Amino acid sequence: MTPPAPGVSFAGLWGEVAPLGRDPRTGGYRRFAWTPEDAALREWFASAAADRGLDVVTDRAGNQWAWWGDPDADGPGIVAGSHLDSVPDGGAFDGPLGVVSAFAAVDALRERGFVPARPIAVAHFGDEEGARFGVACAGSRLITGALDADRGRALRDADGVPMGEAMARAGHDPGHLGRDEETLRRIGTFVELHVEQGRGLVDLDRPVAVGSAIWPHGRWRFDLPGRADHAGTTRLADRDDPMLAFAAIVLAARTAAARHEAVATCGKVLVEPNGVNAIPSRVTGWLDARGADDERVHAVVAELAALVDEHGGTVAEESWTGPTDFDPALVRRLAALLGDAPVLPTGAGHDAGILAAAGVPTAMLFVRNPTGISHSPEEHAEEADCVAGVDALAAVLEDLAR
Amino acid sequence: MTPPAPGVSFAGLWGEVAPLGRDPRTGGYRRFAWTPEDAALREWFASAAADRGLDVVTDRAGNQWAWWGDPDADGPGIVAGSHLDSVPDGGAFDGPLGVVSAFAAVDALRERGFVPARPIAVAHFGDEEGARFGVACAGSRLITGALDADRGRALRDADGVPMGEAMARAGHDPGHLGRDEETLRRIGTFVELHVEQGRGLVDLDRPVAVGSAIWPHGRWRFDLPGRADHAGTTRLADRDDPMLAFAAIVLAARTAAARHEAVATCGKVLVEPNGVNAIPSRVTGWLDARGADDERVHAVVAELAALVDEHGGTVAEESWTGPTDFDPALVRRLAALLGDAPVLPTGAGHDAGILAAAGVPTAMLFVRNPTGISHSPEEHAEEADCVAGVDALAAVLEDLAR
Repeated sequence: MTPPAPGVSFAGLWGEVAPLGRDPRTGGYRRFAWTPEDAALREWFASAAADRGLDVVTDRAGNQWAWWGDPDADGPGIVAGSHLDSVPDGGAFDGPLGVVSAFAAVDALRERGFVPARPIAVAHFGDEEGARFGVACAGSRLITGALDADRGRALRDADGVPMGEAMARAGHDPGHLGRDEETLRRIGTFVELHVEQGRGLVDLDRPVAVGSAIWPHGRWRFDLPGRADHAGTTRLADRDDPMLAFAAIVLAARTAAARHEAVATCGKVLVEPNGVNAIPSRVTGWLDARGADDERVHAVVAELAALVDEHGGTVAEESWTGPTDFDPALVRRLAALLGDAPVLPTGAGHDAGILAAAGVPTAMLFVRNPTGISHSPEEHAEEADCVAGVDALAAVLEDLAR
Repeated sequence: MTPPAPGVSFAGLWGEVAPLGRDPRTGGYRRFAWTPEDAALREWFASAAADRGLDVVTDRAGNQWAWWGDPDADGPGIVAGSHLDSVPDGGAFDGPLGVVSAFAAVDALRERGFVPARPIAVAHFGDEEGARFGVACAGSRLITGALDADRGRALRDADGVPMGEAMARAGHDPGHLGRDEETLRRIGTFVELHVEQGRGLVDLDRPVAVGSAIWPHGRWRFDLPGRADHAGTTRLADRDDPMLAFAAIVLAARTAAARHEAVATCGKVLVEPNGVNAIPSRVTGWLDARGADDERVHAVVAELAALVDEHGGTVAEESWTGPTDFDPALVRRLAALLGDAPVLPTGAGHDAGILAAAGVPTAMLFVRNPTGISHSPEEHAEEADCVAGVDALAAVLEDLAR
């Protein structure tokens, strides 16, 4: 087999994966775990691996691994990869760019005749966005044990289908879920390439960065009770309208985040009864808050909690993930290798963060995103930057597997 | 037949209607047009009429009329009534109090041996709340022609069922919808008794008021576009988050309403994609605004429209009803008859308003609501006040049918 040049290889692979799960109406993607779209992406992965003579292994959680070399015989390998699923109406690059770039990097190494001293693999983690069952990074959390097998099987989608049943329907046996020592033992180092989801590289005028850390992040739900009443006949002074409290909290979240140099978002709200002429009886809002350190995030949340309390509401922490630093020596090594590449933290969670928290030496590469927009059909990366990403990833694999 | 005393009659009828369509979980009512609950309420009405020897007529829109006397032979009659349907999780009194009180008033007149010189009827208007098909006062609007027959038949519920089909399934032929001259000709005067939906009578320490007018009221939808983006990685300065615009508008609506002595409510909002970690791509909010005159309401709406425009959004008027004054001579006559009863306007729409706008001499009576709360399971009226309402209505019918 003669592998194509990196640019040709990348473009070919990208062209194969781009139509899968794309909504022609919006141009966005709907690639959810254990659906027919997910099955098509898994078939594509297996086929790309087979085209390259790589051995495909599916782990206990359903993540796919395409091995060049034998990690069981020759020791833990260098793994590059990402995910293929999407948020609702997501972009083309978040996830697939890392998997496609890993295959293209393998092609590049082979074209230049590189013979690895350690096994190399391309990995595809399932259900990273958690769009269907509500838990992000489900594939990597299951194999590290960060998500308990029973809890994972019992997670339900919007139609009430448990994840275990969805897996079984898609042909994957949910009976083997649980921490996967065999799979973890094979990973010597993990490198996840990902489209940048902000404008750090745009501002620095550079195509590729090395990730340093994942910001601490969490989700909080705030329940604001009110009193259902008639919108036409209830005097303003007699009202207990929780929509007013919600509005004040949304604006306060933004102000607090700016003051503490964090980010805060109220992207979801449920109103009861949500009628035009009804003062709501209850408004439930959610806060997503992240920042460079725990203190900033907790300062934002504390301000919001005080405001919710003032309005007679309650706050519940739905999730919290402390800061995750990638392997500092590895980060320095990759930055030096890539011509003193910028080193940037990110506010987004990734499978790389789950593996790093589980003790796997882990790093990330980010590829420039000209608008910074992500989780949207407008998400983009220029082809030249994608090829620069493939070159960087190939250099990293060569350096680590030499 | 020996009719019972007013209090006994009211309590008996109230006990019959109270369990129908009640949600045992919340104590609220779910009585929606052309459902099995609606059919049970219609059966109850027909049975209460039959018990009293009244002739039940169903009009082209499905409203029910129970006649004491013959309006076709003896000329237009004096009609008392209201509706039996509810908002989602609504209270027991809004609607049924007017129908039950009308039957009890007929019983009272008969007990005292009154022989009417003109026919008297109890009316039950269907689908007043518009909870299922989105148009309030559908029953009265259809017979007056304020709601076009074709448009009415085509209105769809949340499951996509057209009103025409729902009527047909419930056994009412939708083919006869349209302005109902025969029914309108029979109504000499219409008096609707209703639980007060505010605290006017509480403040005045009186059990019963006469309605003077219905405030002008309308509904406006405002669409706020934003840019979908990742909640964790998008800097605050790079965001176009329509939830912030929505929050500012909710608070501004309250401030503007207070300044213009009107009422304004944002009780409904839809967010796309409504995800915890997604900056929304679009927020659609609704404004319900009402006031003592057109100028106040339009001043509120103009302020909101300017703010929506500032945020790059658009405003659409979904409905507008100008002020409706009840018959001034009739209002004065009833207030004098009822011992100089207070005369109060209301911010709520009613079938009485639709009939008044169609030229029918119309008035309303309001019964004290100790909390002012309506459209909620907490809606209430003391039994002594309900009996005072029956007495007042009986006095009004006797005066008008003498």
